[in-house]
Amino acid sequence: MEKDIFLAADIGGTTVKLAIIKANGEIVKKWEIRTDRENGGERIPEDIHHALEASLEELHIDKKQVAGIGAGAPGFVDPNSGFIHEAVNIGWKNYNFGAILSELTGFPVWVDNDANLAALGEKWLGAGEGARELIAITLGTGVGGGIIANGEILNGVNGTAGEIGHITVVPEGGAPCNCGKTGCLETLASATGIVRLAKKSIENTHGSILRNIPSDQLTAKDVFEAAQQGDEAAGTVIEKVTDLLGMTIANLAIAINPEKIVIGGGVSQAGSQLLDPLKAAYKKYALRRTYEATSFGLAKLGNDAGVIGAAFLVKANQ
Amino acid sequence: MEKDIFLAADIGGTTVKLAIIKANGEIVKKWEIRTDRENGGERIPEDIHHALEASLEELHIDKKQVAGIGAGAPGFVDPNSGFIHEAVNIGWKNYNFGAILSELTGFPVWVDNDANLAALGEKWLGAGEGARELIAITLGTGVGGGIIANGEILNGVNGTAGEIGHITVVPEGGAPCNCGKTGCLETLASATGIVRLAKKSIENTHGSILRNIPSDQLTAKDVFEAAQQGDEAAGTVIEKVTDLLGMTIANLAIAINPEKIVIGGGVSQAGSQLLDPLKAAYKKYALRRTYEATSFGLAKLGNDAGVIGAAFLVKANQ
Repeated sequence: MEKDIFLAADIGGTTVKLAIIKANGEIVKKWEIRTDRENGGERIPEDIHHALEASLEELHIDKKQVAGIGAGAPGFVDPNSGFIHEAVNIGWKNYNFGAILSELTGFPVWVDNDANLAALGEKWLGAGEGARELIAITLGTGVGGGIIANGEILNGVNGTAGEIGHITVVPEGGAPCNCGKTGCLETLASATGIVRLAKKSIENTHGSILRNIPSDQLTAKDVFEAAQQGDEAAGTVIEKVTDLLGMTIANLAIAINPEKIVIGGGVSQAGSQLLDPLKAAYKKYALRRTYEATSFGLAKLGNDAGVIGAAFLVKANQ
Repeated sequence: MEKDIFLAADIGGTTVKLAIIKANGEIVKKWEIRTDRENGGERIPEDIHHALEASLEELHIDKKQVAGIGAGAPGFVDPNSGFIHEAVNIGWKNYNFGAILSELTGFPVWVDNDANLAALGEKWLGAGEGARELIAITLGTGVGGGIIANGEILNGVNGTAGEIGHITVVPEGGAPCNCGKTGCLETLASATGIVRLAKKSIENTHGSILRNIPSDQLTAKDVFEAAQQGDEAAGTVIEKVTDLLGMTIANLAIAINPEKIVIGGGVSQAGSQLLDPLKAAYKKYALRRTYEATSFGLAKLGNDAGVIGAAFLVKANQ
């Protein structure tokens, strides 16, 4: 029997996204279960196992059809063994997740970092379709990243490759980052960073319309909307963020020379208001030849990028 | 007959370094010929062909023993076809070098960028021995680079990957670079950049011993030596260069997560005077986990790195 069914799990701090996916990428079923973080997240593999097993039964899918499980987790992963060095939001530390899930389910399991899987998903079926070199950046609460070069995800020697959010963009006097450093890209280009910069910008500008929003309710979306309406304080922030983000992407592109750059995450909903100045900054900071080879696109798969990338992980290793 | 002889050519603007190398990396013979740049460098393939042929004969090496030719050139190379998009210092533009050399010699030919080959050479037999992820940086007149990830050289979609010298480190008000941009790493961390910074630093400092050297004779070596003797103007330059170079390497390492970082080129002859502050800066700017995984080393193969990397290119593709 042909093994043309891929199981996928995208494990986050709040929910585990699950999916049953065909070899052509079609999603047969997708659903979510709660992430049980109690006792260091030890029950998660079993919860995934039961959820997948029940759905296979419900859909009358023969287990012999299943090629394996692809799984993603936010943290430092050894993709060869499925060993999780650390996944802070879930509670795993030195956790042999891949082997445990494989033993429970009887299926082979492949694991990678969730941002890397999102990049793989976009490469397979989304905005990065077919690119051999791709940089995917997720601008959400934080800034995540996945890099594909020579057709393969970069994991690095201990699973920390592609941590684009922690590239230093402000060498001196930068804001503190969750990672312990200062001046990381994440302190500027994440939703949180944009709000932080906007609060500072309001202080230095008279009459910003952002002053009408209670400080604790201000969002990155508000900042983009105010900038759209010509608000100076907001405009300055978007200018600074897109300039430094464009520089960071250009610097990465000088190293990787990608065909495609894919921008996703909540902040990317600003669309061309983000992409247009970002492309201009990229042009300014990239080598001309590097610039000419690259196209920019918004991520297409949204919340499904993780499970689709996880399915691709199975497909690629099958 | 076993094909255990690799021919290598490292083509520079002044000379072509040639070598005959055994499968274990032992150099049987190495020599140089002049680079004939006349008429767009059209005679170079023939010159290489004749030089190699004469040496094979002289050494009584049967052509059947030869696995192929590896060649490096400074410029944008398509390694799959051996096509040179552009190699400014040699005069080639859209030049089908690999195919031409292969037709002349009858051997298969593999071509890559010279800085990439130096990185491959150090990975095979030098300071980066066995590393699956490696960043090699050459600090010479300019700043060159080669990146190895997942065991393979990164070339990128149009041959500009690893152009580390053109990463922007000074976003505003940086010095002009040969590439047309401003504030590139090369404007600071190359021998030329160090001299430029030193000249500026002397102007702002009283009593620097560098003032005793005629301005047009000042070298990067002089700057390191003066700093060693406690000269303030020189010390400030070395501090700035190592801090920003360390930051750039840390930013690259956050993307690639390498096991080894290899520093070569003339400037690297400063040894620990360069490496010690560089490592400190790397520690300051890298993620802790990335930092812990990395070791720094000085390039070991010197001028042979290019031909050894070229031989490895043959070995890897054999």
